[in-house]
Amino acid sequence: MSDTLISRRDLDFLLWEWLQLDAILTQPEYAAHDRETVDAVLDLSAQVAEDLFLPHFKACDQDEPRIDAEGNVRVHPSIGPVLREYAGLGLFGMSFKEELGGMYLPQTAVTASQAYFMAANVAIAAYPMLTAGNARVIAAFGTPKQVDAFALPQIAGTDLGTMCLSEPQAGSGLADVRTRAEPDGADEYGERYRLSGNKMWISGGDQDITRNIIHLVLAKIPGEDGRLSDGTKAISLFIVPKWLPGDERNDVSVAGLNHKMGYRGTSNCLLNFGEGLHQPMGKAGAVGYLIGKGGDGLALMFQMMNEARIAVGLGAAAIAYRGYRQAVRYAREREQGRAVDPAKAGGPVAIINHPDVQRMLLAQKVYSEGALALVLYCSSLVDREHHDPDATELLALLTPIAKSWPSEWGVAANDLAIQVHGGYGYTRDFDVEQLYRDNRLNPIHEGTTGIQGLDLLGRKVLRSNGRAMALLGAKVADTVSRTNGNAHLAEFGESLVEAWSRLEATVDELRGAPPERALANATAFMFGFGHVVMAWLWLDQALACDPNATGEDAAYYAGKVRACRFFFECELPKTRAWLSFAASLSDVASGVPAEQF
Amino acid sequence: MSDTLISRRDLDFLLWEWLQLDAILTQPEYAAHDRETVDAVLDLSAQVAEDLFLPHFKACDQDEPRIDAEGNVRVHPSIGPVLREYAGLGLFGMSFKEELGGMYLPQTAVTASQAYFMAANVAIAAYPMLTAGNARVIAAFGTPKQVDAFALPQIAGTDLGTMCLSEPQAGSGLADVRTRAEPDGADEYGERYRLSGNKMWISGGDQDITRNIIHLVLAKIPGEDGRLSDGTKAISLFIVPKWLPGDERNDVSVAGLNHKMGYRGTSNCLLNFGEGLHQPMGKAGAVGYLIGKGGDGLALMFQMMNEARIAVGLGAAAIAYRGYRQAVRYAREREQGRAVDPAKAGGPVAIINHPDVQRMLLAQKVYSEGALALVLYCSSLVDREHHDPDATELLALLTPIAKSWPSEWGVAANDLAIQVHGGYGYTRDFDVEQLYRDNRLNPIHEGTTGIQGLDLLGRKVLRSNGRAMALLGAKVADTVSRTNGNAHLAEFGESLVEAWSRLEATVDELRGAPPERALANATAFMFGFGHVVMAWLWLDQALACDPNATGEDAAYYAGKVRACRFFFECELPKTRAWLSFAASLSDVASGVPAEQF
Repeated sequence: MSDTLISRRDLDFLLWEWLQLDAILTQPEYAAHDRETVDAVLDLSAQVAEDLFLPHFKACDQDEPRIDAEGNVRVHPSIGPVLREYAGLGLFGMSFKEELGGMYLPQTAVTASQAYFMAANVAIAAYPMLTAGNARVIAAFGTPKQVDAFALPQIAGTDLGTMCLSEPQAGSGLADVRTRAEPDGADEYGERYRLSGNKMWISGGDQDITRNIIHLVLAKIPGEDGRLSDGTKAISLFIVPKWLPGDERNDVSVAGLNHKMGYRGTSNCLLNFGEGLHQPMGKAGAVGYLIGKGGDGLALMFQMMNEARIAVGLGAAAIAYRGYRQAVRYAREREQGRAVDPAKAGGPVAIINHPDVQRMLLAQKVYSEGALALVLYCSSLVDREHHDPDATELLALLTPIAKSWPSEWGVAANDLAIQVHGGYGYTRDFDVEQLYRDNRLNPIHEGTTGIQGLDLLGRKVLRSNGRAMALLGAKVADTVSRTNGNAHLAEFGESLVEAWSRLEATVDELRGAPPERALANATAFMFGFGHVVMAWLWLDQALACDPNATGEDAAYYAGKVRACRFFFECELPKTRAWLSFAASLSDVASGVPAEQF
Repeated sequence: MSDTLISRRDLDFLLWEWLQLDAILTQPEYAAHDRETVDAVLDLSAQVAEDLFLPHFKACDQDEPRIDAEGNVRVHPSIGPVLREYAGLGLFGMSFKEELGGMYLPQTAVTASQAYFMAANVAIAAYPMLTAGNARVIAAFGTPKQVDAFALPQIAGTDLGTMCLSEPQAGSGLADVRTRAEPDGADEYGERYRLSGNKMWISGGDQDITRNIIHLVLAKIPGEDGRLSDGTKAISLFIVPKWLPGDERNDVSVAGLNHKMGYRGTSNCLLNFGEGLHQPMGKAGAVGYLIGKGGDGLALMFQMMNEARIAVGLGAAAIAYRGYRQAVRYAREREQGRAVDPAKAGGPVAIINHPDVQRMLLAQKVYSEGALALVLYCSSLVDREHHDPDATELLALLTPIAKSWPSEWGVAANDLAIQVHGGYGYTRDFDVEQLYRDNRLNPIHEGTTGIQGLDLLGRKVLRSNGRAMALLGAKVADTVSRTNGNAHLAEFGESLVEAWSRLEATVDELRGAPPERALANATAFMFGFGHVVMAWLWLDQALACDPNATGEDAAYYAGKVRACRFFFECELPKTRAWLSFAASLSDVASGVPAEQF
């Protein structure tokens, strides 16, 4: 078991000791699997991530995608062979049912596996992540013919997929999508439309890894008057392959590449649809097949967006996790300064002995291991929701946290990984500066942190019946009840009760306010909410630690319990400032005239 | 007045309305200056920064320093001509006395001028910053001959200077410096030594901007037994020019360049001294002239380090400031989403109208304008200490804050500048990603944040007689007293009193504890201390705003008062978590066995 990227001991704890994946494996849909098969997939993932993904980590950053003379995107030459091996091992299909060519592992196990690839080289791992999300939408809502033609090749990894939502003028505000879809009859692949418009920020929008690319595109079908209506209700979802069935080139072309601060191995494109470079089936316009019903586009796409949001959280967690492991290794090796304790006077000591370095490592531990725990917990809800509608409600509530908490605090962890390395961490001789740059995308894509705050407070808390909050409250109470009589953890149980009460009081305050006032400080609310959730998950993990363990296990559990204590001492107290501000309904950051900035 | 980099309205407020630079100008040593001359220097600085420094901002990043076939460092070709123009305008000598060829402006004005250059292109501005610090050490402690030969060319800008402290094995821990200095007689330039050793992280360590480079080098003179003693007391300071008087090449050579995440235009070198590439005066070893007395090296160097620490704070503030201005401009132009208020329904609105964007802009405003105010305040102490020993004590206490607060929160501001830009901010088409990368060096160099925490709590607070804290407390009390009866500010005065009491109580708690326990959480203490200081400075600025102003001035002052309110509502409450943790004497991050990470 290699621990270069993710500690397997830690993963085993999270999966088997804490989340009880063995119980999930007894669900009938996972009958083909047991601990042995899951372990084998994790072994394989660790090895493939380390042997195939990791060696190209820096090269994918240094040698970013470019457009060749023919207008096609060339990505780093390592990526194609790596993803073909990955496909050959069936890893694209890990989460899909057997009848679709997949392995149908529980999502909890799939997430654990993906953590390795994202830690090793998130810029390569992004391609299969998007592809799986795309294929799942088609598998869920497409016709059998659409599934065969457009989902199966993605599940096999012979085609890659994208999600085309944003446009240059429509990023966070999808209501302003202007891509048009004109009806063009129907054929065996469904209702055919002709699309024209521009899509921005398309990861994997073009590449030379696979010949075909399956785009899922949001566009508006014009009304009788030929106009596109405003708002999101007019948005429909289309399958737009780069190469049409019958091997004809569709009219999708690359207008430009975005040159990013990090995450560079993933091509990021401005795409033109229906610009006239090609005339598929002898007519103008990119051919797109409607998926689901017209006007359902955003609702259908939300399946992929929710999956992508958790995947972004996973990527952020994994990048933070790898940085943390590197900082620990560096701190154990690097000698600098003397012990503060005069009793330990002598030569230079490894910096891991300095309290400030220990603080920075513990902060990284609670952020990175905590973020991974959060994302795995949400994945276990994906597994459990097959039989438990409560899991669905809880997952919807926690999705904005699963997206934003790892993204925000994962970057903070990578920042501290640089700081532990000192000047060396600021150089490209070490990995941590790239991890920091790569991770900085995560608070932006798939809905910015601000958008997640509005989703959490607006949609999931204020515009709900309160059931999801009650479910979460019951989970918290259950964890707290298990700290009764625990000499080490009871005090944290009390702190959690207090924090949860503050959160509930904040929600009550916000429910009583006009929505625009309540929502004004949604991000502060989410920061507070996220830290309360994480305090709960850290306490719940501490409870799963075996107090009677010996040897290496004893140190492992002691580390988890210490991290829990660190979270309660150094992190949870921050919630007071965020939640008080949210509850105050302050208008300090509302309605400010532009001239005051 | 161009506001591209730094708002001149803001600078005028800080200098004349708040810090009362006119009073400083009445000090006899600044008799040559008045508001007119200061204004002229600021006008010139704004123009030179914008016309000469700014155009090469990206080029200096993209085309980083390299070593040519002869082993010499080549920096970006723009830098030489830019700095020669800068030198021609006398700007290297801004802070030096007339008899040294300088302008002898108050440090407050010099800092304001430097803010423009650092905002425009910190990688170029770093060369004169280091050069001035170096020349000031020689001017203060060198012999007349040393001043003539080694300081004057730097004040004129015909030579550049460096500070050579760190070694590969000795960064934060200078006690472990191993560079040797063997006595070699004396000549007209002073006691001559032969140096041998390696110096790491030397900014400007080699370059092709000027022919000569004046290195200030820390090295140890061996004892009678030929051994270098441990600790910092054996450290001496030497002037080691690349070219010796008489135009002979000294034995200083470049062993390698560090390839950084940002701040790339400033070459950063591993230097070898006395490696044998040259034999100056026919003998082995780099020739160095002792400055001051043997063993005084660290004490003398601290003058430069303290100056450099404030300069680092200034750079961090200026980079944050420019990012903030860019985020404001972008937010005014970029349209996205709808107004939350249903009464304002309609088309897309400029994102500056969204509360979450306003939150991110106000946070940047309090971090960047606050950091600039802090650094200017410390500069005014440099001016006032000529006649006021209290200013010296206060400056010593505040120096670790002036270094660390802008560095930590400046990066946070640049992070938010990216976030306001959304995906665009993550691309290299905009400037904010580079500002973020450039600024990330600042919490590391010239003493990491952790080192500043130990300096503040250990040296400046616990190992002091408490006078500096009392002076600061009196300043805070004075500001609070001026809020009495002020309808808008009195409540913040009360909050500040409470925060200051908490800080004092924390200090009392820490004074009563064993030093190694007290110091374990020095960084948390400093974070809390820094935020209390900044709350004071924001309140003090708010008091300097004219409540009866009209027109543009009214909006400007309203913005300052709003920023003050934002700081008290959103930032000051964070201090409770930091200070409680410091006061708790927690050992959660002390003595942790390495296996627990």
